[in-house]
Amino acid sequence: MNPHHSWLASANDHADFPLQNLPLGVFSPQGGRPRAGVAIGDSILDLEVLLATGLLQGEAATAALACEGGQLNGFFALGRQARVVLRERLTQLLAQGSDNVGVVRDCLHLASDCELHLPARVGDYTDFYVGIEHAKNVGKLFRPDNPLLPNYKYVPIGYHGRASTLRPSGTPVRRPKGQTMPAGHKEPNFGPCARLDFELELGIWIGPGNAMGEGIAIDRADEHVAGYCLLNDWSARDIQAWEYQPLGPFLSKSFITSLSPWVVTAEALEPFRCAQAPRPEGDPQPLPYLWDARDQKSGALDIELEVLLLTERMREQGLPAERIALSNTRSMYWTVAQLVTHHSVNGCQLQPGDLFGSGTLSGAQPGQHGSLLEITHGGKEALALASGESRRFLEDGDEVILRARCVAPGQVSIGFGECRGRIIAAA
Amino acid sequence: MNPHHSWLASANDHADFPLQNLPLGVFSPQGGRPRAGVAIGDSILDLEVLLATGLLQGEAATAALACEGGQLNGFFALGRQARVVLRERLTQLLAQGSDNVGVVRDCLHLASDCELHLPARVGDYTDFYVGIEHAKNVGKLFRPDNPLLPNYKYVPIGYHGRASTLRPSGTPVRRPKGQTMPAGHKEPNFGPCARLDFELELGIWIGPGNAMGEGIAIDRADEHVAGYCLLNDWSARDIQAWEYQPLGPFLSKSFITSLSPWVVTAEALEPFRCAQAPRPEGDPQPLPYLWDARDQKSGALDIELEVLLLTERMREQGLPAERIALSNTRSMYWTVAQLVTHHSVNGCQLQPGDLFGSGTLSGAQPGQHGSLLEITHGGKEALALASGESRRFLEDGDEVILRARCVAPGQVSIGFGECRGRIIAAA
Repeated sequence: MNPHHSWLASANDHADFPLQNLPLGVFSPQGGRPRAGVAIGDSILDLEVLLATGLLQGEAATAALACEGGQLNGFFALGRQARVVLRERLTQLLAQGSDNVGVVRDCLHLASDCELHLPARVGDYTDFYVGIEHAKNVGKLFRPDNPLLPNYKYVPIGYHGRASTLRPSGTPVRRPKGQTMPAGHKEPNFGPCARLDFELELGIWIGPGNAMGEGIAIDRADEHVAGYCLLNDWSARDIQAWEYQPLGPFLSKSFITSLSPWVVTAEALEPFRCAQAPRPEGDPQPLPYLWDARDQKSGALDIELEVLLLTERMREQGLPAERIALSNTRSMYWTVAQLVTHHSVNGCQLQPGDLFGSGTLSGAQPGQHGSLLEITHGGKEALALASGESRRFLEDGDEVILRARCVAPGQVSIGFGECRGRIIAAA
Repeated sequence: MNPHHSWLASANDHADFPLQNLPLGVFSPQGGRPRAGVAIGDSILDLEVLLATGLLQGEAATAALACEGGQLNGFFALGRQARVVLRERLTQLLAQGSDNVGVVRDCLHLASDCELHLPARVGDYTDFYVGIEHAKNVGKLFRPDNPLLPNYKYVPIGYHGRASTLRPSGTPVRRPKGQTMPAGHKEPNFGPCARLDFELELGIWIGPGNAMGEGIAIDRADEHVAGYCLLNDWSARDIQAWEYQPLGPFLSKSFITSLSPWVVTAEALEPFRCAQAPRPEGDPQPLPYLWDARDQKSGALDIELEVLLLTERMREQGLPAERIALSNTRSMYWTVAQLVTHHSVNGCQLQPGDLFGSGTLSGAQPGQHGSLLEITHGGKEALALASGESRRFLEDGDEVILRARCVAPGQVSIGFGECRGRIIAAA
């Protein structure tokens, strides 16, 4: 038995889904109803069918049973131990030298034949703002001398997002309509958004929750995280600018939020944890309730993030999507554990299947910006594309593709799969 | 048969639940599981038991069946016609002269023996800010000369709230902990909230939803409203002041939001609709997508709202709760229909069981303010109570009670029941 390679050839050297990843999701095979599965190479392992073979027993069977019903909420609620046991058993079954190749092969569907769904019912979706370079870049557009507000380095800033319009990768993105106040006007306009943007974010799936009134201590916070995905927080900048005072973004974000459908587990990401970047000289220490000495060793995540743009013309001319940003989760000023603890410190109840967005993750340099707002300096400087086109904001027909990849010395790389969305004209 | 009086004596002249109200909710009788019921006088009519008697047939039976499972979401999804048919049949069965008094009496539980729950699973909770006097009062604390922001009279301002901590009346309110930045300090504090407040709001239950991408036109918006309740948007003012820039309130509100458990239907409120207050000279007309000529006749609601405070000392001394505010839903600058249309104009999907809060509903005069922030001018002027106590903000042991009552010439008055919550010490 070779625990590093799979008998499924497509898994070995797969950019996203080698044996070392085993992300969970919810899919429908052709003509079938939604059920839980695990991505492996070019295929999806059907957990319901696998359960019926009897190859899962004990805790692994309990874990797979909790995935039933086409939503992973029950599985998320079980926590780390259930994920670990299921992961170990799936690794055995899919590794080279497994005794059960024939039976397990019959549990596979070709991924390209399947439809992917949201992995869980999201009770509440919270969007944070912890990409500090993004916060600086956006702040500079409004306050060149003082881009970060005074609370930024003390409070992991976040706000409630809209759960009803979370959609899996591939769902078309209808250009929203709304009120805007163009510069120099005295009355607002109503019409299709003219400054449509993407935002590159990490999504975080909550596992076990907490009782209302009881916060989650920082040293237990990681136990409440089930896994990760990519999240595109589509944003209507012109609607946002007019509506957001004093209560924050609302309709400028709530028309759709796209998610990559596979939940990359905390265990699969374990080899890609890294030290939190040291806080710059002069930055305050986190308050004690947010302080965990372990963060300085392994609190952060090292995940390469990528944004590609595929325009209508590129598709017509057979050109590939063009990379327009390369970034990394290390730009998060707060760890995921700090987000969990902060969110619950007032007694707010988190529930299995709740979703966090990190906020836009940008680097400090050109080429590392996770939104067009930053890339084009608020629409002032058009982005030139290799196709000969240029963009200040997104046009109908544009498709934005988010990807992520984890690389570390001595480790098999894993990826997240894609989070795609193509803009369609306003209704 | 007398369609105005009930054979149930406690219903006649009941302040909240006469035969003309018939609000729906979810309750548990002693030792029983949650199920749907209708408040009538001092009793609750058990819809499951009533259904089993065979006294509901056809559409009325379909409506009652949709209430099964201890959540009204399925019933809300059916829309107006189902509510009307069920209401008509229940009115027949409960009216004086009904042929079925004995059978129906056996379907009643004494309300005081029952526990009340949230009436539906809330997918998304949105809190608006359309009480214009509140917006002015709060704005004055920060900008005396220019209390309303430029967007206020064009955009029905709202933001996403936290669904997981919505709780029914009676749930204790644990004082939240969090970061605050006291005046003159250079570093934030962490500890229990010192400026705990209530907010008097109308809650709005959404009935049938819309598909993502398809907005709800203003002339159809009322069809998407199932009913109403009272909502206390508990607020930690000191946490709010420090956290809310730039994305709006977050932990200062998400520790708990209390709801009155009975859904007063749109039909029960029909006699209490009224003309929207004329916009003051100089205010802009609503943009066309928010304009409905009918609003000038019957777009608004005339509901008297009341806040009472019961302190620990009042309880000890046997004193009654003291009224500290009297307000009215007529202070809403936007109609409920306008909220529905605005919320969905960008394609945002509303779903049955979604909840809106109106925002704090204050009047312009002293004695009409729906929060302590307004009553005490930001904590500067203590409120003197008849018990000899005073309050700037809420203390542990204080109980806030919201009530509402509809009165109109020639109509039997109806009420909402109570929305109560007592503050308990921080964890």
